[in-house]
Amino acid sequence: MAFPFQALPGFRDFAPRDRALCAYLFEAWSRVARLYGFSEYEAPILESAELYLKKSGGELGKQLFRFTDQGGRDVVLRPELTASLARIVGEQQRNYPKPLKWFEIGRCFRYEKPQKGRLREFYQFNADILGEASPAADAELAALAIDVMRELGFRKGEFVVRLSDRAVWQEFCSIKNIAPEQLDAFLQVVDKIERDKPEASDKKFAEFGVTRETVCAYAADPENASPSIQAVLADLNQRGLADFVEIDLSIVRGLAYYSGVVFEIFDTARSMRAIAGGGRYDGLLDILSEGSVDMPATGFAMGDAVIANLIEETPMALGRRQAWEQRQSTCDVYVVIADESNRPDALALVNDLRNGGIRTDFPLTATKINKQFKQADAALARFAIVVGNEFPELKAKNLSSRTETSVPPNADRVEAIRRLLDQPDGPLLT
Amino acid sequence: MAFPFQALPGFRDFAPRDRALCAYLFEAWSRVARLYGFSEYEAPILESAELYLKKSGGELGKQLFRFTDQGGRDVVLRPELTASLARIVGEQQRNYPKPLKWFEIGRCFRYEKPQKGRLREFYQFNADILGEASPAADAELAALAIDVMRELGFRKGEFVVRLSDRAVWQEFCSIKNIAPEQLDAFLQVVDKIERDKPEASDKKFAEFGVTRETVCAYAADPENASPSIQAVLADLNQRGLADFVEIDLSIVRGLAYYSGVVFEIFDTARSMRAIAGGGRYDGLLDILSEGSVDMPATGFAMGDAVIANLIEETPMALGRRQAWEQRQSTCDVYVVIADESNRPDALALVNDLRNGGIRTDFPLTATKINKQFKQADAALARFAIVVGNEFPELKAKNLSSRTETSVPPNADRVEAIRRLLDQPDGPLLT
Repeated sequence: MAFPFQALPGFRDFAPRDRALCAYLFEAWSRVARLYGFSEYEAPILESAELYLKKSGGELGKQLFRFTDQGGRDVVLRPELTASLARIVGEQQRNYPKPLKWFEIGRCFRYEKPQKGRLREFYQFNADILGEASPAADAELAALAIDVMRELGFRKGEFVVRLSDRAVWQEFCSIKNIAPEQLDAFLQVVDKIERDKPEASDKKFAEFGVTRETVCAYAADPENASPSIQAVLADLNQRGLADFVEIDLSIVRGLAYYSGVVFEIFDTARSMRAIAGGGRYDGLLDILSEGSVDMPATGFAMGDAVIANLIEETPMALGRRQAWEQRQSTCDVYVVIADESNRPDALALVNDLRNGGIRTDFPLTATKINKQFKQADAALARFAIVVGNEFPELKAKNLSSRTETSVPPNADRVEAIRRLLDQPDGPLLT
Repeated sequence: MAFPFQALPGFRDFAPRDRALCAYLFEAWSRVARLYGFSEYEAPILESAELYLKKSGGELGKQLFRFTDQGGRDVVLRPELTASLARIVGEQQRNYPKPLKWFEIGRCFRYEKPQKGRLREFYQFNADILGEASPAADAELAALAIDVMRELGFRKGEFVVRLSDRAVWQEFCSIKNIAPEQLDAFLQVVDKIERDKPEASDKKFAEFGVTRETVCAYAADPENASPSIQAVLADLNQRGLADFVEIDLSIVRGLAYYSGVVFEIFDTARSMRAIAGGGRYDGLLDILSEGSVDMPATGFAMGDAVIANLIEETPMALGRRQAWEQRQSTCDVYVVIADESNRPDALALVNDLRNGGIRTDFPLTATKINKQFKQADAALARFAIVVGNEFPELKAKNLSSRTETSVPPNADRVEAIRRLLDQPDGPLLT
């Protein structure tokens, strides 16, 4: 009989084994961001609808989880983080040295048709640098994105950062007499050039008085790379990271607020959607703050859905997959209670071990010894510590090698068991 | 000029310094839960309204963030986690050994008047044991709650676990001829006995044919403690934790689904609301699953708002406060670029340090040396590594002692700098 309630469509339940992959991903994001000197912030899940409509308008507006709260406020579950970040930076930037290097790992929500790599509730890692107009900030972010991929086990040749600059298309429009106020609409067509049918693109470009061929030829000519693109490449080259990057001027990003350098990351096989994307949005704080805070800004986001699919489907990442499979161990030692008369001593031992920083589990109620050992194996414990009639002597059974050691009565028991755990012979380390 | 957008009332922005307290709290929750053999799960933020209305009804119904999504679904931002947990356990329990010991740290939402310790968006730590009916499971949870408080720096005498059992009041109602179907309504009055005016309680109890004095006398008599309460106390005594617990039969918890042992934690001065609370809810899975899964269950939750207030206002926790103040360091070393001609070498060094697991920051653009040292201090870096005209020799300046060391050209630079960091003399460790 099926359980009468399920998660809503496009929403996921993370039972502990699913949560382990998530935690592996979040820790990699967080670790690399901190290595790069980024600080973590956190914005509310619910925001005023106006904040996000003002920022993004267009397509995103139709995909919002939007409602009126009990106080009559028009609110949304945030579809992304950038407007919230801009709000917090606008209010609090005086308290922090510049440039700000901030990251958040948080849930975002979009009402769209659930499909592979697209969900209604997903996690996003956002890293942003505010208060620095130089392409050096864009290079720092591209380097961070590359190192996140490497931290997750991906190597050179397995993914690529496609680098571009909207300034290139401003230049193009200026040459082709496309009016500045048409730039956004023109970029929307460029953005969809790979997804649209050629005839559809032809028709759309004709409205701007250019042909699809002209646009593609312009995008394919490396001579058209902007000074900012060259500066980012030179910087990454000095870091030894240039081999991860390609110039691809057809990358323009969908949202209207991007103002300069932009990039997206793809798996080399292009088997999936973009793994990450971002770019410069120098005008956004000025717009959202109605002129009160004007700071240059650049950032990128990586969602959890595409990268998780890639980790699961890519053999190269298998070594790293073991890392999160090992997370399924729920304790280091399992205290076996040989006889219920030993329970008081066992409870005291459990308490000591936990206070000593050792992850410890035990049978809450009277349980046959065989079953206790099965529980210890199921928990992926490394040692079973048997409290039996030899107490205060303990038996420590290595659950991988099935060898047994005695922990003598006079020993500092916690220290003795810690030393056993320090030996790299448990099932988790083979 | 004020920024035109703010967080919604009752919602918080966590800029990095505020986020540090949060991270300190979450890590303590997570660390102690893992020491106790609990596994992390994660449920969606948005759920069908029916799931939570079916579970809680009553008071919670009025406090829901509830709306109709674009697909016409009646949905809520979860007000707590237990119904989501029950749903996930109901669907997936076959895949996990029993008893399940699961925890989540997540956001919850209630539409109520924002005030101290009560917000519209807050974090909750939930720990639950499912599949074990014995009071040993309740004792394991009470011990976990006590050890969380100790991990956060609170000591014996500074907080108390008030332990009770709804079975005590079933017994009372049976003696006093209060019908079983009136039990919930009666417990609502007991629950509010400390907050209501005596006359108001008198009046309410009169409807059940008893007096307030009778109820209070019954609650005050330790002889009325149930066998389950005695078992929990005996268990905690064996762990050396009984001193943290008091029997207080007036604790019954507000929600209708609690079925047995319940407890709440308070600061001893009773200066605040309950810090945590929970208890046994053996019937909930059966109700939510419409009879398809029947598992005994017990759990507790601790929100972030009350405990954060307590940490901030309690001098005893100051030592621990320093721990999260130290988290405001955004890098271990700051690479100072003495002259722009050194930038390529500096960038390569930054990359090597980060790859070596050392948190490293540097000036993204040409910056005066004095200002670079100020940035290094602001980041709470322990060392400034100067890349200057002696390169490949480096100068390492200890930012606490202001002493300088040379890193010779032939050394493994990352290893040499790691050794410097291993010395406990930085500003963060004094």
